Amino acid sequence: MLIWWGHKAHKLVEDKIVDRVQQRVLEGMGLLVLHSGHHSKIFKRMMGTTANIRWAERGEMERVWVCNPGHPIAEGLGEYFEIEMTEMYGEPFQVPAPDETVFVSWFEGGEVFRSGLCYKRGNGKIFYFRPGHESYPVYYNKDVQRVIKNSIHWVCPEKTSGLWIDRIAKGIDNMERKDPVQPIEVKGYQVDHNYKK
Amino acid sequence: MLIWWGHKAHKLVEDKIVDRVQQRVLEGMGLLVLHSGHHSKIFKRMMGTTANIRWAERGEMERVWVCNPGHPIAEGLGEYFEIEMTEMYGEPFQVPAPDETVFVSWFEGGEVFRSGLCYKRGNGKIFYFRPGHESYPVYYNKDVQRVIKNSIHWVCPEKTSGLWIDRIAKGIDNMERKDPVQPIEVKGYQVDHNYKK
Amino acid sequence: MLIWWGHKAHKLVEDKIVDRVQQRVLEGMGLLVLHSGHHSKIFKRMMGTTANIRWAERGEMERVWVCNPGHPIAEGLGEYFEIEMTEMYGEPFQVPAPDETVFVSWFEGGEVFRSGLCYKRGNGKIFYFRPGHESYPVYYNKDVQRVIKNSIHWVCPEKTSGLWIDRIAKGIDNMERKDPVQPIEVKGYQVDHNYKK
Amino acid sequence: MLIWWGHKAHKLVEDKIVDRVQQRVLEGMGLLVLHSGHHSKIFKRMMGTTANIRWAERGEMERVWVCNPGHPIAEGLGEYFEIEMTEMYGEPFQVPAPDETVFVSWFEGGEVFRSGLCYKRGNGKIFYFRPGHESYPVYYNKDVQRVIKNSIHWVCPEKTSGLWIDRIAKGIDNMERKDPVQPIEVKGYQVDHNYKK
Repeated sequence: MLIWWGHKAHKLVEDKIVDRVQQRVLEGMGLLVLHSGHHSKIFKRMMGTTANIRWAERGEMERVWVCNPGHPIAEGLGEYFEIEMTEMYGEPFQVPAPDETVFVSWFEGGEVFRSGLCYKRGNGKIFYFRPGHESYPVYYNKDVQRVIKNSIHWVCPEKTSGLWIDRIAKGIDNMERKDPVQPIEVKGYQVDHNYKK
Repeated sequence: MLIWWGHKAHKLVEDKIVDRVQQRVLEGMGLLVLHSGHHSKIFKRMMGTTANIRWAERGEMERVWVCNPGHPIAEGLGEYFEIEMTEMYGEPFQVPAPDETVFVSWFEGGEVFRSGLCYKRGNGKIFYFRPGHESYPVYYNKDVQRVIKNSIHWVCPEKTSGLWIDRIAKGIDNMERKDPVQPIEVKGYQVDHNYKK
Repeated sequence: MLIWWGHKAHKLVEDKIVDRVQQRVLEGMGLLVLHSGHHSKIFKRMMGTTANIRWAERGEMERVWVCNPGHPIAEGLGEYFEIEMTEMYGEPFQVPAPDETVFVSWFEGGEVFRSGLCYKRGNGKIFYFRPGHESYPVYYNKDVQRVIKNSIHWVCPEKTSGLWIDRIAKGIDNMERKDPVQPIEVKGYQVDHNYKK
Repeated sequence: MLIWWGHKAHKLVEDKIVDRVQQRVLEGMGLLVLHSGHHSKIFKRMMGTTANIRWAERGEMERVWVCNPGHPIAEGLGEYFEIEMTEMYGEPFQVPAPDETVFVSWFEGGEVFRSGLCYKRGNGKIFYFRPGHESYPVYYNKDVQRVIKNSIHWVCPEKTSGLWIDRIAKGIDNMERKDPVQPIEVKGYQVDHNYKK
């Protein structure tokens, strides 16, 4: 699996890298995106949206509520956990409707945010986890560490054998089915496609 | 709303155009993607996947089944409709799980395909409709025409006033919330971000 | 469409009524469920879950945030609206993942709740809207009234003609397909089903 | 986990049993529903819909296509597998949009069906698998057996410790939060609820 966190250099990541990471995620590699990674090229690529948010840096308190207490990502947590000082991210968070909302955050400054979101794309599981910062000591928080640990396990493929291979991306195949599965007669206009020459 | 159909020149569409169409879809513009448009840059952008399929050109018969007979896109159709000669598209179709599967196709040659898929991204509705071809006379089929007509209406925004504007994309705002909604004291490490200078 | 709000007499609603409302929703009738209607038989029936929540009556302030500013249900609202005194509902809210989360609430007492949730079941649209109370004056709030008005329009079927009829429920049909769509020979063991006698 | 298959005696299952199975599924127990189990009380309860289908018994051939070749439930299968003689189930299948469509079936008689559907409700995973019959020898088919085996593993909870307990259903708690998480003053009208006496 791959953990992705970036802050200000998102644009410096080459598109070729993004293409390859996307391909691997679709083939089954888990992807955990942290905090400001919401604006990374790879997260926006996988979502198909801008992933825009509201934000403010005021060192405010964040209380992260568990929306599904039996979810593997919430294992070992109480009903909520608190982060003493954090950067605020507020709604609207422009992402597709997730398969599951695991966390919603309450901020001291009066805002809310869907802080833990599960997605599946191709055979890859994706988890977005909001907490984190480049200066507030968020990643020293024991519960934040626990969620990261749990989600690393959750995004991993359930089976390691037999993962699907993208034959087009790998240049093995153009996915034309040469022979029909069910015997039929070819009919209609025969088209001369250049790409067949 | 926008109808998108392309065949072999997908790569010639400039990324700038794709960026602008994506932004408009997220703001609320409907998008109807037809047949080989599944491999267009804009559809792959909105999906976050490859949209790869299996295919074959044998002029085979396609029977398109309605999975939700009360869906506005299926209005006026019977339980199914048939297309005399068509290019086959087969599963796996690599797209995110749709909000709704309106059509599933049965092909004479023994394959199946999820032929009508609904998505919402941001405020934009997206419908993918499989039938179509550059040489078989699919777009003369009355039921195909009916579905296209119905889906044009369905993808349009339900309200035309008050559509959301992407203030970041438009350069109006960086979405920082300058003042807290709930009065709080700023605390924690004051970070000197270059982007604030 | 139908608005459902109840408080303490949920159990007095007869199952026959619930059956009939469910059937009409599946056929296309919109359903708007308010506040404590989350524990109504019809809402639990449509969700397939308990719809359990956390709650407290302390007259606290609720700030309802808009997660999708372009959604028809949010038309005419600002980024958020506030309710002066309310009963708190807190996560976890045990419902299936919604098609869209339109509102998330921030409570003065430190909790959060997914306050506006969209579902589609059969051909019926369902919207759950949290605010409301039997004693706090929540339904006098202009923004609450606006959301109720918007959502009444949103849950209504997009087309009024050609709604799907549940032929089994209506006793018209047992949905056996008497003749094959594609000509085939019957084979295999002929089973003597009592229900055919 | 629990496998549920029934045919004609669905109505004989007591509602009390259904209540208890539902509660255990929401708490995390996997549920695999086979073939005509689509009309079982427990499946309809979990779905919130009628689960109605089209059907015919003609011993026709079914070809089950894999829509996501990397899904754990499809492990060890090829692109498709065939069942020599089967009862046909045809669309529309009235269920909520699934989290994932793993299989779609092609029938000799010209119909299609979404044959493998994944759901999550509460903490429980649910898989519906169409193939099966009370007289055609479907459950002797090696690939059908493989899917059943794979899906038994898939529906099981990822973590066995720390599963969520439904405290209301168990009579432990009415889920009132006695003390606010964030210190606040109680305000507003004090209501005399009978249920508090």
